[in-house]
Amino acid sequence: MWMRNLPINELQRPTLLKLGGSAITLKEELFTPDKRVLQRLAKEIKEADVSPLILVHGGGSFGHPVAKQYQIEEGYQDPSQIIGFSKTHRAMTLLNRLVVEALIDHDLPAIAMPPSSFIITKSGRIQSFDRSPIIKMMEMGFLPVLYGDAVLDWEVGFTILSGDQLVSSLASNLNADHIVIGADVDGLYTADPKTTPSARLLPHLTLAELKNVRQKIKEVTVTDVTGGMMGKVEELITAVEQGIRVMIVNATKPNNIYKALKEEHVIGTLIERR
Amino acid sequence: MWMRNLPINELQRPTLLKLGGSAITLKEELFTPDKRVLQRLAKEIKEADVSPLILVHGGGSFGHPVAKQYQIEEGYQDPSQIIGFSKTHRAMTLLNRLVVEALIDHDLPAIAMPPSSFIITKSGRIQSFDRSPIIKMMEMGFLPVLYGDAVLDWEVGFTILSGDQLVSSLASNLNADHIVIGADVDGLYTADPKTTPSARLLPHLTLAELKNVRQKIKEVTVTDVTGGMMGKVEELITAVEQGIRVMIVNATKPNNIYKALKEEHVIGTLIERR
Repeated sequence: MWMRNLPINELQRPTLLKLGGSAITLKEELFTPDKRVLQRLAKEIKEADVSPLILVHGGGSFGHPVAKQYQIEEGYQDPSQIIGFSKTHRAMTLLNRLVVEALIDHDLPAIAMPPSSFIITKSGRIQSFDRSPIIKMMEMGFLPVLYGDAVLDWEVGFTILSGDQLVSSLASNLNADHIVIGADVDGLYTADPKTTPSARLLPHLTLAELKNVRQKIKEVTVTDVTGGMMGKVEELITAVEQGIRVMIVNATKPNNIYKALKEEHVIGTLIERR
Repeated sequence: MWMRNLPINELQRPTLLKLGGSAITLKEELFTPDKRVLQRLAKEIKEADVSPLILVHGGGSFGHPVAKQYQIEEGYQDPSQIIGFSKTHRAMTLLNRLVVEALIDHDLPAIAMPPSSFIITKSGRIQSFDRSPIIKMMEMGFLPVLYGDAVLDWEVGFTILSGDQLVSSLASNLNADHIVIGADVDGLYTADPKTTPSARLLPHLTLAELKNVRQKIKEVTVTDVTGGMMGKVEELITAVEQGIRVMIVNATKPNNIYKALKEEHVIGTLIERR
């Protein structure tokens, strides 16, 4: 079937905002959002008034534990995983609902767009998708809200699509202006700041520098099924190669997301192609 | 962009089940599901064990009041409707979550697929959509759950896609075996049974007979923004013309949905092309 696929023009170059699961949930407590942080972030997004904007959030203590229990990321192996896929997706819709509620509470016209409804990966990677609905959503002034999700896969039946791959793919596909990554750490470090006191924040990296240091960047967060900071950085390289700026900031600290969305000076790591 | 669109084969001819909003919600009480009915229907669906199956539900006291307040069905007229579209969709996701929960409670691998994520109408009508995700969901053994939704529209910005148009379009597109419509009345009547004591249930109609009586069928339910029984019947004609059987039963009465899914004898209205 022929699909009408809207072109994207310069005026519509969106800003992509990723809110990490570990920033918006209490990662060690099952199905527990950090409602205070969610409300504050919604307020910062409203005040920043960036348009068009697309929000992608992670799974934190909602999606990951269920996905892990049923080994969804490993693909289809056993019929008992089928209900596990449903439960993983349901867990993500629960968190998504809380995010959307917080945004609508702040008068932001958020629309949930579950990736499993329109993206099928191939061996875990996004190949193509009908981008018309998301472009039309932006044109109309909506704030599309997507998330890391259990998705179908042409090769392995199903898998987990990480919020990081999704944000990078959307940014490339929609020719984003820049990407803001809201993490639970201040940015990229020379070592894990939680265990290594001498770890140093990297405030600015070119693509070449990023490729040099990526071998040295150790995981700085609790292991999750979609990888730690290393995996996130790997996913961002494609977007950076395309000339899209990436700013990594700590979303758990007030005003960082506001400043990063406005491209004001803020503590974090800026990655540019140069 | 080229979209891989899965073919549908004879083995996969799905059964389509529509659960009317007035059957699963307390239509006169805002945002109030009929949880007892939902649990019973989930049990009947589980016991009927029909595969593949696609479920479509209506909005009842969730979607309709909000859609009406913001005149979403009339299309974009005013910026104040934008937040109204978000709120309408949110209301539908709330009801959808309750439906999906009830199904998963009964060990049915339900997956919510919001139409607004992958369908854009043209002047209120579905033109085309990427059907690959829904077909792949069925192939894997999932139970896709869709619903009447606020959707984007190429001509008028946005509108309401009724569950009735959706079920008819899905049935045609996916070459359904048959359609079960779960209403809050026993089927099609010669007059409104709620106000006309002499009203007679029509147990069987051919397509020709249906076209003859459709002028006589008066609305038998509370007016909703997507039309009453007349609108529902109009929407079904395309599917019936394609040779798809339609059985209308009262979903508020026990075992009707079970029997209709199993194609056992049940009180209601059967519509066939013949």
